[in-house]
Amino acid sequence: MFFMIQPLFKVITIEESLKIFRQSFNFATFFKKREEQIELIHAYGRVLAENIISTENIPGFNRSTMDGYAVKASDTYGASDGLPAYLDLIGEIKMSEKPSFQLQNGQAARISTGGMLPEGADAVVMLEYTDNISSTMIEISRSVAPWENVLREDEDIKKNETIFGKGHRLRPQDIGLLAALGCEKINVFKKLVVAIISTGDEIISINSKPEPGQVRDINTFALGAAIEQMGCIPYYIGIIPDDELILEKALSECLENQEIDLTLISGGSSVGVRDYTLKVLNRLGPPGILVHGLALKPGKPTIISLNKQKLFIGLPGHPVSAMMVFDNVVRKIISDLKGETFHFGGRKTIDALLENNVFSDAGREEYIRVLLKNKNNQLWAVPVLGKSGMISSLAMADGYITIRLNQEGLYQGQKVIVTLFE
Amino acid sequence: MFFMIQPLFKVITIEESLKIFRQSFNFATFFKKREEQIELIHAYGRVLAENIISTENIPGFNRSTMDGYAVKASDTYGASDGLPAYLDLIGEIKMSEKPSFQLQNGQAARISTGGMLPEGADAVVMLEYTDNISSTMIEISRSVAPWENVLREDEDIKKNETIFGKGHRLRPQDIGLLAALGCEKINVFKKLVVAIISTGDEIISINSKPEPGQVRDINTFALGAAIEQMGCIPYYIGIIPDDELILEKALSECLENQEIDLTLISGGSSVGVRDYTLKVLNRLGPPGILVHGLALKPGKPTIISLNKQKLFIGLPGHPVSAMMVFDNVVRKIISDLKGETFHFGGRKTIDALLENNVFSDAGREEYIRVLLKNKNNQLWAVPVLGKSGMISSLAMADGYITIRLNQEGLYQGQKVIVTLFE
Repeated sequence: MFFMIQPLFKVITIEESLKIFRQSFNFATFFKKREEQIELIHAYGRVLAENIISTENIPGFNRSTMDGYAVKASDTYGASDGLPAYLDLIGEIKMSEKPSFQLQNGQAARISTGGMLPEGADAVVMLEYTDNISSTMIEISRSVAPWENVLREDEDIKKNETIFGKGHRLRPQDIGLLAALGCEKINVFKKLVVAIISTGDEIISINSKPEPGQVRDINTFALGAAIEQMGCIPYYIGIIPDDELILEKALSECLENQEIDLTLISGGSSVGVRDYTLKVLNRLGPPGILVHGLALKPGKPTIISLNKQKLFIGLPGHPVSAMMVFDNVVRKIISDLKGETFHFGGRKTIDALLENNVFSDAGREEYIRVLLKNKNNQLWAVPVLGKSGMISSLAMADGYITIRLNQEGLYQGQKVIVTLFE
Repeated sequence: MFFMIQPLFKVITIEESLKIFRQSFNFATFFKKREEQIELIHAYGRVLAENIISTENIPGFNRSTMDGYAVKASDTYGASDGLPAYLDLIGEIKMSEKPSFQLQNGQAARISTGGMLPEGADAVVMLEYTDNISSTMIEISRSVAPWENVLREDEDIKKNETIFGKGHRLRPQDIGLLAALGCEKINVFKKLVVAIISTGDEIISINSKPEPGQVRDINTFALGAAIEQMGCIPYYIGIIPDDELILEKALSECLENQEIDLTLISGGSSVGVRDYTLKVLNRLGPPGILVHGLALKPGKPTIISLNKQKLFIGLPGHPVSAMMVFDNVVRKIISDLKGETFHFGGRKTIDALLENNVFSDAGREEYIRVLLKNKNNQLWAVPVLGKSGMISSLAMADGYITIRLNQEGLYQGQKVIVTLFE
């Protein structure tokens, strides 16, 4: 006989595989060594490794939110166009300065948006409702309530308030808030470093011309970009031939290398003669392979292995399959390893109507690549039905739709949610 | 009199303002100098400055998409479990190699996924439908059609095919496809460099402790992060006091600096005594101010100025307003200047039900910040009603909803689309 057919592996759902990973991985140990201090100016997209507690009141003074006059609200009660109030104009408040005077009953002071209210003042009358009678008197034609058009000294942020929790991923406005608090440096989790290995005798470097039977290394590039997209650092190992010893050496180096947090290996994970990846991962260190085989298409022969607290993920060799597993499995694992707490968002989606029926075997999740087109002001999702291994089918697609485990298909004209490629 | 009230500016819609910008800006000249060659490995998110035309067929050989046997399809016709076909096994095809033999009638050869079909073969029978009878004979229990389980030599990509057009923003799988084609280097548009200036006497550096009346510089940080988020490079100018000459000097430097493509100035754009920005921009060079005043809230006092083919955008000083204008106006302008052609996507959105009524004056677009909460398995959008200038209201929010120009409000229980902050 030429070769052995291994027994078909037992497939499990993505949710089950993530549960197994989360139960097996020691997150506490992992995050203990991941803190680093960075400057706020470089903090976009980083994940906080500390709770941020305000050390100040913001704005820290009673601030006008309008251009107008600082007044005592009680001096304006009952004022109207027909019966205006008249107040003594005692000065102008300069931006960025603490007023040198105190406001007495019957007095007003010119103030601009952002200016500090003088002591004694408790409201601002908008410019529109005032008239200059002389250089020392103004007329007010509308009353204001106490603290109207004023931001109180602790109204934006209160001292000792918890602003963000550990695990919060920083968005632009969050960085703005940290600037308001004077947090020049913050503690965040280190960026995740993800190693990428392409395996297969048929894989050649992109600067080579393929002989018949050879293909250029697509996965290193596509996976590397997807890793960058997630705010992580790709660590390129390169191409490893179908040789058990060379693969073992490469994986051992990833295991020992303290810089690498996670290793992706594409190829070598399907049932066949060249199935070294499983063997090598199982002897690389305990506990070994956690998951082999997922109920999804494409992507069934996925492997998740944990060796001495280091994660290795075996992806299918076909670029289309490798990318779909990355999108639906690896992204979730990376998000956990980044230390991010839950946030709304995830991948961008868009609603569309399905142009053709698509079918799937029940019991697995299936991803159908689609392109989007506008027809009569309605967005339609058109399935891109390429054969397995066609990278062009992925590049042509705008995104994909998912046929869930318990669905047998989706029907023409049905509303579908398209996960967009970014 | 203390000060002059300028006439209120005439507001226009965002769409009108973008139309004016697009009519006034010379895109052809702008893009002429923006090409640069980069390595594919660094191409994620970059925008192509050239059309990519395939120089090869991909895969370039007839490739098996399954593990099994390469055959002539006609030799399998009529084969079934009850009446199998018997073929002579003449060899095994090694991965990455061109088979040394040619297949004759009645012959089969062992092949793996990704292997090259020998001459004479035109289909692959999956392993599951075969049995080894001896080392020189196999049994086949299912027929295959010509080219079944085979990716033809030009089926993925055809030589001379246009793969991507100029203006295409590269996603991970697109980079994978360029790797398949051997495009080690590609021509893309240079990254956009966006200068940021914060103006106002009350603005202080984040490493200073604010005196009463002062606030730390929030916009430099929040806008810088939003610029990074868009794949552009922030160029930090810093804080400029309310001094016409100093502002003019700074803006002139931005005008002359060939590195800077676009300048954002926050503060100084509302009607008031410190309204130098307008004056300075109008004398910086022709044509001058294109837009002053947008029908949106917050964000009304926005300025768009074009001076000697350089763009300057004046944003409100309040961080909340500045960020909302960035999101709804500046993003679109930046996308144009990056050279991106249309793609599906844009900001992430999520559907929710509105928890409270919200109202707006007709004739302007209004942005209501919301936080999202789950209640009985339903997502609800809860308006965050902070006063103008509260940065915490933005940091607390998960996103915002938009009350359109022609809407007067949105109602409790209504389905709303929430644009998510990322």
